[in-house]
Amino acid sequence: MQRFVNDPDDIVDETVRGFIKAHGDLVRLHPNNDRVVVAHGVPARGRVGIVTGGGSGHEPAFLGYVGRGMVDAVAVGELFSSPTAKAFLEAVRVADGGAGVCVLYGNYAGDNMNVKMAQRMAAKEGIEVLTVVANDDVCSAPPSERAKRRGVAGEILMWKVGGAKAALGASAIEVRDTAQKAIDATRSVGIGLGPCTLPANSGPNFTIEPGTMEVGIGHHGEPGTEVVALETADRVADRMFDIVFSDHDLSSGDRVCVLLSGLGATPVNELYVLYDRVERRLAEAGVAVHRAFVGNYFTSLEMVGATLTVMKLDDELAALIDADAQSPGLSVRATGGQ
Amino acid sequence: MQRFVNDPDDIVDETVRGFIKAHGDLVRLHPNNDRVVVAHGVPARGRVGIVTGGGSGHEPAFLGYVGRGMVDAVAVGELFSSPTAKAFLEAVRVADGGAGVCVLYGNYAGDNMNVKMAQRMAAKEGIEVLTVVANDDVCSAPPSERAKRRGVAGEILMWKVGGAKAALGASAIEVRDTAQKAIDATRSVGIGLGPCTLPANSGPNFTIEPGTMEVGIGHHGEPGTEVVALETADRVADRMFDIVFSDHDLSSGDRVCVLLSGLGATPVNELYVLYDRVERRLAEAGVAVHRAFVGNYFTSLEMVGATLTVMKLDDELAALIDADAQSPGLSVRATGGQ
Repeated sequence: MQRFVNDPDDIVDETVRGFIKAHGDLVRLHPNNDRVVVAHGVPARGRVGIVTGGGSGHEPAFLGYVGRGMVDAVAVGELFSSPTAKAFLEAVRVADGGAGVCVLYGNYAGDNMNVKMAQRMAAKEGIEVLTVVANDDVCSAPPSERAKRRGVAGEILMWKVGGAKAALGASAIEVRDTAQKAIDATRSVGIGLGPCTLPANSGPNFTIEPGTMEVGIGHHGEPGTEVVALETADRVADRMFDIVFSDHDLSSGDRVCVLLSGLGATPVNELYVLYDRVERRLAEAGVAVHRAFVGNYFTSLEMVGATLTVMKLDDELAALIDADAQSPGLSVRATGGQ
Repeated sequence: MQRFVNDPDDIVDETVRGFIKAHGDLVRLHPNNDRVVVAHGVPARGRVGIVTGGGSGHEPAFLGYVGRGMVDAVAVGELFSSPTAKAFLEAVRVADGGAGVCVLYGNYAGDNMNVKMAQRMAAKEGIEVLTVVANDDVCSAPPSERAKRRGVAGEILMWKVGGAKAALGASAIEVRDTAQKAIDATRSVGIGLGPCTLPANSGPNFTIEPGTMEVGIGHHGEPGTEVVALETADRVADRMFDIVFSDHDLSSGDRVCVLLSGLGATPVNELYVLYDRVERRLAEAGVAVHRAFVGNYFTSLEMVGATLTVMKLDDELAALIDADAQSPGLSVRATGGQ
């Protein structure tokens, strides 16, 4: 395994420590819990707190999206594992400025269980906790079972919207409803070309035979809908577009926000090659890209592959996506640009 | 080759096209040259223009550093190849606002030749072109032959400084001298754990045997100083620190800017693991990190590995590093943070 690792048991400690050192201008470690990262200025009195959390190995997700106008506190799990209920609870407590907290997270069994537990414990302390469960991953369940779908890179756009809505002084219910609207308007798909290896394991988590690719793969190597022969970049982009588009209610005249993320080991230039084609397909469908993010936004260790996320925008979502935000993983200037 | 590629001959066209589409709020394509990317608002009347250029495959370098307070125009080469003299010339022309242009680039034979040719052609048109050649890669030549060293990720910090100095209204000579001071205060080292493959080739550009690593590797797989058994992350970080520190004139009480970049296929969390140790070593030496950048800032397709760059700061360099800048690859807010 050609990797930079000390004792695999220490990797999350070291990642969080390095992250806090590198981004100390924006974030800090929770004083009593080394699995909770907090934005400066949090809690903000009278403002709804935004919390998320998830397993490590997806950097810059999840901790990289803590900052201004984004996530206030994040619960950090072990590699590919849910954070504990205690970490979620501490994140909720620290993010609560008296106006309640919205936990915006992805649909995984461990996260569901631990967020619910934290929610109950927080309720006993008088903290109102509302939740939104992201399920943007189209291939993880059919349309008739959308609630079973996993949350993937669309979560980043949900955090952006939720963070911006909270910054405007909205109530917890308004923030929750807007974040829910955001993720309901979002579809994602992943294509895997190569597996990843958890440092404590001797071999890859799963297998992708050279010359093939897995369509609809999940962020931890969860099986997709099919394994097909490796295709050209354009055909892969077409496939991603078709999967997202056919599940979406997009039509000519619509505006979208697009996030095209590498899964870890795919060269950055190839993400732009994919994006070039995706944008063309959107344009042919009469759909305008209001804003695009291309890069390593939500990775899976050194998995080879990419994900496409498309959020349909109404005027409110467009304004919230454009609102000022500053975090190590994503930065938007209210005046335009990143 | 598990990659997203169409015809390998088209990859740079497609990359540039996708890049312009994704970041059209900050950049545009040169109207007459599809290998030149230009920031909006360029040329700026009376302000010195900042130009760079280099081969593709290092994204977000080089084109990702075009923006406000950074690079004004970039010449884009084929994969791992210098841009043409014509592309450099067009970048110089478009960046010239009447106050001259500084071309801040890396020390490679092709770039040296083509920049000089462009400089001569521009001079005939009455455009003053000054140059700074980055040679921050410690292992590429001994201290006695520093001028032979290659330029690597330290170029990003040089562009940041040069762009900020130009934005202050400095003269071309002042911008040149400050960029020169910046790169003179900068040292970098790369460690390679796995090779990369140019899509047009059948196999990797070079070999790194599993269980080994190459110390001092260049951005195109140029041989380093030694091949050793693969080490733990902490020992790798120690090695990088020692190489940079022993070549630098750092001492207790100094301040630095650190850039730790992945080479393409290394998981992002491992970069933070390395940074955690590097920062500790700096702290032990009494050197404070004024600002750090950790992520995929200067890659080499899907090479596995990382580079460490350390710039020693005086008050002027610290202020220029902190100045407002906005580009797809790097963003700094004058108010702090990224």
